[in-house]
Amino acid sequence: MKRIFEINPWKVITHTFNKEDKRLQESMTSTGNEYMGMRGMFEEKYSGDTHKGIYLGGVWFPDKTRVGWWKNGYPEYFGKVINAVDFVSVDVKLDGESVDLAKDEFSDFELALDMKSGILTRSYVVKRGEKKVRLNFERFVSVDMKELYADRITVENLSSESVEVEIDSSIDADVFNEDSNYDEKFWNVLSKKKDQTTGRLVAETIENNFGTPQFTTEMLMENVSDLDAKEPVETDLKVANVFSGTLESGKKTVFEKRVVVLTSRDYETLEDLDAAGEKLSAKQAESSFDELKAAQANGWAKRWEKADVVVEGNDESQQGIRFNLFQLFSTYYGNDARLNIGPKGFTGEKYGGATYWDTEGFAVPLYLALADKSVTRNLLEYRHEQLPGAYHNAKQQGLDGALFPMVTFNGIECHNEWEITFEEIHRNGTIAYAIYNYTRYTGDTEYVTHDGFDVLVGIARFWADRVHFSKRKGMYMIHGVTGPNEYENNVNNNWYTNMLAKWCLNYANEIADKVDADKTAELGLTSEERAKWHEIADNMYLPEDKELGIFVQHDTFLDKDLTPVKDLPQDQLPLNQHWSWDRILRSPYIKQADVLQGIYYFVDRFTQEQKERNFDFYEPLTVHESSLSPSIHAILAADLHKEDKAFEMYSRTARLDLDNYNNDTNDGLHITSMTGSWLAIVQGFAGMRVIDDELQFAPFLPKEWTGYKFRINFRGRLLSISVSQEGTQIDLLKGDDLTIKLNGKDLKLTAK
Amino acid sequence: MKRIFEINPWKVITHTFNKEDKRLQESMTSTGNEYMGMRGMFEEKYSGDTHKGIYLGGVWFPDKTRVGWWKNGYPEYFGKVINAVDFVSVDVKLDGESVDLAKDEFSDFELALDMKSGILTRSYVVKRGEKKVRLNFERFVSVDMKELYADRITVENLSSESVEVEIDSSIDADVFNEDSNYDEKFWNVLSKKKDQTTGRLVAETIENNFGTPQFTTEMLMENVSDLDAKEPVETDLKVANVFSGTLESGKKTVFEKRVVVLTSRDYETLEDLDAAGEKLSAKQAESSFDELKAAQANGWAKRWEKADVVVEGNDESQQGIRFNLFQLFSTYYGNDARLNIGPKGFTGEKYGGATYWDTEGFAVPLYLALADKSVTRNLLEYRHEQLPGAYHNAKQQGLDGALFPMVTFNGIECHNEWEITFEEIHRNGTIAYAIYNYTRYTGDTEYVTHDGFDVLVGIARFWADRVHFSKRKGMYMIHGVTGPNEYENNVNNNWYTNMLAKWCLNYANEIADKVDADKTAELGLTSEERAKWHEIADNMYLPEDKELGIFVQHDTFLDKDLTPVKDLPQDQLPLNQHWSWDRILRSPYIKQADVLQGIYYFVDRFTQEQKERNFDFYEPLTVHESSLSPSIHAILAADLHKEDKAFEMYSRTARLDLDNYNNDTNDGLHITSMTGSWLAIVQGFAGMRVIDDELQFAPFLPKEWTGYKFRINFRGRLLSISVSQEGTQIDLLKGDDLTIKLNGKDLKLTAK
Repeated sequence: MKRIFEINPWKVITHTFNKEDKRLQESMTSTGNEYMGMRGMFEEKYSGDTHKGIYLGGVWFPDKTRVGWWKNGYPEYFGKVINAVDFVSVDVKLDGESVDLAKDEFSDFELALDMKSGILTRSYVVKRGEKKVRLNFERFVSVDMKELYADRITVENLSSESVEVEIDSSIDADVFNEDSNYDEKFWNVLSKKKDQTTGRLVAETIENNFGTPQFTTEMLMENVSDLDAKEPVETDLKVANVFSGTLESGKKTVFEKRVVVLTSRDYETLEDLDAAGEKLSAKQAESSFDELKAAQANGWAKRWEKADVVVEGNDESQQGIRFNLFQLFSTYYGNDARLNIGPKGFTGEKYGGATYWDTEGFAVPLYLALADKSVTRNLLEYRHEQLPGAYHNAKQQGLDGALFPMVTFNGIECHNEWEITFEEIHRNGTIAYAIYNYTRYTGDTEYVTHDGFDVLVGIARFWADRVHFSKRKGMYMIHGVTGPNEYENNVNNNWYTNMLAKWCLNYANEIADKVDADKTAELGLTSEERAKWHEIADNMYLPEDKELGIFVQHDTFLDKDLTPVKDLPQDQLPLNQHWSWDRILRSPYIKQADVLQGIYYFVDRFTQEQKERNFDFYEPLTVHESSLSPSIHAILAADLHKEDKAFEMYSRTARLDLDNYNNDTNDGLHITSMTGSWLAIVQGFAGMRVIDDELQFAPFLPKEWTGYKFRINFRGRLLSISVSQEGTQIDLLKGDDLTIKLNGKDLKLTAK
Repeated sequence: MKRIFEINPWKVITHTFNKEDKRLQESMTSTGNEYMGMRGMFEEKYSGDTHKGIYLGGVWFPDKTRVGWWKNGYPEYFGKVINAVDFVSVDVKLDGESVDLAKDEFSDFELALDMKSGILTRSYVVKRGEKKVRLNFERFVSVDMKELYADRITVENLSSESVEVEIDSSIDADVFNEDSNYDEKFWNVLSKKKDQTTGRLVAETIENNFGTPQFTTEMLMENVSDLDAKEPVETDLKVANVFSGTLESGKKTVFEKRVVVLTSRDYETLEDLDAAGEKLSAKQAESSFDELKAAQANGWAKRWEKADVVVEGNDESQQGIRFNLFQLFSTYYGNDARLNIGPKGFTGEKYGGATYWDTEGFAVPLYLALADKSVTRNLLEYRHEQLPGAYHNAKQQGLDGALFPMVTFNGIECHNEWEITFEEIHRNGTIAYAIYNYTRYTGDTEYVTHDGFDVLVGIARFWADRVHFSKRKGMYMIHGVTGPNEYENNVNNNWYTNMLAKWCLNYANEIADKVDADKTAELGLTSEERAKWHEIADNMYLPEDKELGIFVQHDTFLDKDLTPVKDLPQDQLPLNQHWSWDRILRSPYIKQADVLQGIYYFVDRFTQEQKERNFDFYEPLTVHESSLSPSIHAILAADLHKEDKAFEMYSRTARLDLDNYNNDTNDGLHITSMTGSWLAIVQGFAGMRVIDDELQFAPFLPKEWTGYKFRINFRGRLLSISVSQEGTQIDLLKGDDLTIKLNGKDLKLTAK
């Protein structure tokens, strides 16, 4: 654990700057608007260790894969969100020398990300001999105009002498990805333009051998300064505007950089891109910086109105949950069905920007409750759009049906390791589950019987081919999988996978009864095929130990040495930093919920005894070295009235990044895991469920808090739920009357 | 299958040259002398597809590894034998233009590798308009002076007009490995020298980050020509001597290139290297080319005298077995205990030059019988020398004892894939088995009770830590392994591995009773530790199916869909070229002998019924997609009197490369598999065993042959075994009287 920011309910704020924490600071002060986003690197020059990262949603590159020996069925490339052309850098020179906090003496430092308004500010005083100069930065990516990035830099001379100030504001295509497999750079510059106060650069991703699209971006920079505009600079990969002048003692100068960023994702031709750029650039120029800031704050206020969670009596928790929601919404707010939620969003490279099953498993329940249903619908349509890719992936393995990818931008699998790509096929189940979850929560059956059914059939066909019949056991089995617990590979009959596969086959059959005959015919679905699905589901092998009363993680799990985590020398944790991969794989230690993940999905279909026996067996073996793990345990612990355990688990997820709990936040934030703290509060502490079209709550108040409040959307209503020492208060803020269950009893809500 | 060479008992010979078979031709005409070797690429310019490969035994480079995501315990680098500085190329120009068979018109082509003498010859007539010129090449790496490479090129003008001839003979460090992970080149030139007829180049491998040695090579070139010596050429990475002149109609000119190749493996300082080079260069200059050739032929004659196998009535088989022995001896002849037998020897890059368990599993039995016992002893000492590396490898996995590497040059594991490096630990068993095998065959107990015991203890300690106790079964188990069948990964309780581990623990204990107390004390071996070994061995879980009467390949193997290979669509074979890795891993198809490999090792410890049941169960599931597989099956089939099956299996190994059976010989020859055809004949058809210090034979004659003869060394004797339709004749050619068993009966042999 390492905490470099102060506790504050609405801000990520610090008054210190340590060079060794630079990357951590950058991750934590990331900002984004779904369309684009960036780490909190400095605008001005910084010669120390830093990780510049600016990313554009959906702009990616198929990097040549890096495996030992390629085998049939391996993905051909590893897709990654690439660092965009750098439109952020502004070199500030004082008396001819760049300000550089890696070298300069400075004081009065403050860095603050205001989560209420989505604005990142920073200020400090540079000391150069007897001279002192204050720099102040305010920047944001706009949630009001998605293409806009705006930055205001104020330079104030606190000295008794004058200071020469020069500001170089640039757009620079000479960028790289730290995770480039072969140290390649990914941008070619197509054209550049510049005059004294503006610049424009059009760049295109380099060609690739994999038939994936190239992307073109156009960036229009406009600078406003009361300093003298000098001759602009142009090099092969860069344009820059230069301003300079003398700043007298006590005076300040204000500089603004605004950049409009467009990509070929939204425009068919370069001409369209150009025309749109001109128009948007003119449009933003109509507003003052303060007006743009106000629009930004207003946009965020609307989001918070629907989604804020208030924690009373614990500012650490309060800051944690808001930080998580802020970063989630910065990554994805459902405006573009072609985008998804990358595990690190716009905050880092590893797993960056690509789509994982995290979206369906962990993010969907949150967006269902906190945003319009169209947002989740877009997440589902994203998979439907990519169904051809999923059929392709299955075919690559010699299998029928659709195998959704572990990692993708376009539906085609693009991860490296076989033990993940071929084997972590449980993701297919979660993608079907998300359709079920959406239908259950919204009551909207239109999706599941149309586009959703295409997806369910593709998935069912995959499972029907992926199983094999074991003559010895007389049952269907699934060999060669990796379950959610990635600390085991290539296991047989993972209970979670088999259970989900069985459920998928049954669910596809259940929905098949409800769809139009036209749809069934279009999909070529016959009664023979449906009968086969029934037969497989009815005869699916689900490993269980009757004596222990548990579902068995996989065939030979119980043969392991089952020493609980608490009996390990604690200096060996986290295991992934202390143990060889060999030792981890052979150990019984569970990276993230596996059997328990399945129980979580269908929490109301198991008996309390089943839940308790499995929780008590698996939880002591779980090391939670995936950030996706603790929240699921928090919810199940709450369900089992293990309130202390629920709060303990919640605590591991609530401030995971703010406290750098896993010592890896310098690489970027755990965006998809950030849903976990919300899930732990709402599904865990407040016990929210939707059962048979009815919303239910069964809240408790953790003893560490004096109260908590949150809002949710449900079928056209906006509800406020407040839990305090006095009890639970649920209000219908908007929408038609609704009867819900609170602690097992009906409660009729009427809008006030 | 593709056969590009003619059937000939002593030659690999062809009279055609097809460009599309160039790489295949190069692999098949590889030559070597253990110290160095090369593929059969042309000396003269060749602008078509070719794979130049010249390798020096033990000169390797730690290439940066290429894995998706590195995890703890992964090897840091992938070692590879690198392409040596090219000392072979000779550019022959006619009328100013290079001869280039990719472009030139030619006729009367012959290419022949004479296995009797180890000399590679080639000749053809180039047609340029009306002019015709014959070129003739004769080259070899000397078995008489290991550092010497010699080449003689004759140019004969068959035209009525004169031809201008120019010969550029070079040493060139601008070489690369096709399998370089990041397209790096590995040589820096330290110094060059040249005069009109000689050149010298000293090069050093580039620095690396892994603390492995850099190698320096010095090459001294001496050219002899009756053409005019011109100004020599020098570039950054190359020196060349140039000769030219006019060749009148009907005349010929003879050019000789001789190169002395030295490496820092044999000399401590550059001065020593220089001095030795001068001396050797002077020494070879004392002999004419014909004298050098005679010495070469004489060296090979001595080898054949001890090792030749004669097959009567089948020239294909005859050529096959001689080719295999020739290439094996070219790769390794036991002169340098620091060297080992790379799976592709000096004939290609993949697996090139590194040491695998193939040596102990497949090559040791052959060298035991065909060469002095010191040769095998050197192979054993190689592992003893590398014991510190093996302890290091175990430690990397968090384990006690010694884990010998899957791939190595220095004892440190340097392969890429975790499923191989961590998991294919059965290799440790084979390394112990080779000590047992050596001791059994030679009767020499000195090694096993001294250096060999160090190895056995390291291995036993590894197994004792690598097992775990399953409370549920009350037995010791080994989880997370890959058996010899690499078409499954990460299985539990592989019978072969568990059986070998148990045997190792028992064998270490058995030998411990025989070693001096000093040795035991030196190793810190206590009675407690030995008792633990006993306990583990006594309680080792060995999966067995009593009903089927078989040993089970691993825990869940019998749950698979056990459709035999013959019922697969035959166009899906070989599986590794048609199926995804996922499908292969989940299938029951066995790449190479697994349970049967274990039975082969201890063939006299199982009942005929056990052998038969296991053979009949596993053989129909085996696809033999490792070249190491058929020979083991041939031996067991012979043991079970399945003579047709034995011959069928033999046929798949005998001409594996000559007929490009697996369609991959263009990458290089399957050197270690080449032992297989000899093993199939000697241990299979002739039933050779050593049981209780007694040599035994139980021969049969395959009906496809009229007879076969071979020679072996056994405890100081040289024996000739001849099997014909008249029966078996065994003669003692050298050494003391010996009683052996033939078909179960005593036979006393007396030297003639």
